[in-house]
Amino acid sequence: MLKLFYAPSTCALASHIALEEANARYETVRVDFATNGQRAPDYLAVNPKGRVPALVTERGVLTETPAILAFVAQSYPAARLAPLDDPFEFARVQAFNSYLCSTVHVAHAHRMRGRRWVDDDAAILAMQRKVPQTVGDCFELIERGMFEGPWVLGASYTICDPYLFTLGQWLEGDGVDIARFPKIAEHHRRMRERGAVQRALSAEQGR
Amino acid sequence: MLKLFYAPSTCALASHIALEEANARYETVRVDFATNGQRAPDYLAVNPKGRVPALVTERGVLTETPAILAFVAQSYPAARLAPLDDPFEFARVQAFNSYLCSTVHVAHAHRMRGRRWVDDDAAILAMQRKVPQTVGDCFELIERGMFEGPWVLGASYTICDPYLFTLGQWLEGDGVDIARFPKIAEHHRRMRERGAVQRALSAEQGR
Repeated sequence: MLKLFYAPSTCALASHIALEEANARYETVRVDFATNGQRAPDYLAVNPKGRVPALVTERGVLTETPAILAFVAQSYPAARLAPLDDPFEFARVQAFNSYLCSTVHVAHAHRMRGRRWVDDDAAILAMQRKVPQTVGDCFELIERGMFEGPWVLGASYTICDPYLFTLGQWLEGDGVDIARFPKIAEHHRRMRERGAVQRALSAEQGR
Repeated sequence: MLKLFYAPSTCALASHIALEEANARYETVRVDFATNGQRAPDYLAVNPKGRVPALVTERGVLTETPAILAFVAQSYPAARLAPLDDPFEFARVQAFNSYLCSTVHVAHAHRMRGRRWVDDDAAILAMQRKVPQTVGDCFELIERGMFEGPWVLGASYTICDPYLFTLGQWLEGDGVDIARFPKIAEHHRRMRERGAVQRALSAEQGR
């Protein structure tokens, strides 16, 4: 059975929702960030990067949200979570998720995880000051140029939707008002109504 | 015909090499970073993110290196640039490339592109000071835990190889000695001997 290592309120939520959407058989293992569990030897044996998510499969461990999401979509084709038979449309899915991973998530990470990139405290504060702008700019670009509606890439729900929802959860903490982005805000509300999203959120919060 | 927008010495090289490996019909368009061409209106009309690479196809524009690489692999299956029929192996490819995109490239970007994340000069210097460590740590992790040999993911050359080669090109500028990573250094030398790599590099340098 698949095993998802996650921590609440992290990007692991996207993979968690996708597993629910796919009706996959899986279990979850919570990694305790409060005690730095992501750096504990037993977790580093699972994922040497010391990050979540990690998805343990019978063939080995997968990491990185875009890869896990594509794996779930390809492994459960009946759930129709991505346009699997069209390389161009599939690449559009991957391009959107890659942007979330490498630009939007990274912009956000400068608020809480600045020590990845600097050592001194003044620079940490300088990073944090700019987060509302950088994260806001990213969502502005998505709202204006990428989001097609009603789902991220148009008529069909894909693995882009839980990932955008997950990063949208961080906006308030980042000092960005989601109401600036009407299409994304409406999508966010609609995502909250989905059973898969509610199940993943309550599983994360319930432990 | 495909059209690749690139700038020399950027991550666009990975897509350029992959197109050569695939024996694709394509042309290249150089974006002049010296005159801030990536922010010019005509380029923003192609890629509103103002970054390279962008691959113009007859169906639309693709961005983000991991997505373009997967698109090339899927569009030219005869070139065998990825394990296309195995979702787990394909996810391993995507996971490696996602790590390069979201962690390794981002660590490097703090040297030259720090103003993406901070405004003040002292913080820029603080970022630059840490780059040799953060980039070095990433390559250490690849050397010890990810690189299988002789190619990144084992016996078969994949779209991970040109991407690792491309980021390896930046090590010297980042103050990291590639000789610390014997497997990666040997791979880098071997990549340089490939016709596709030589053709892409000379096309980039020749204009």
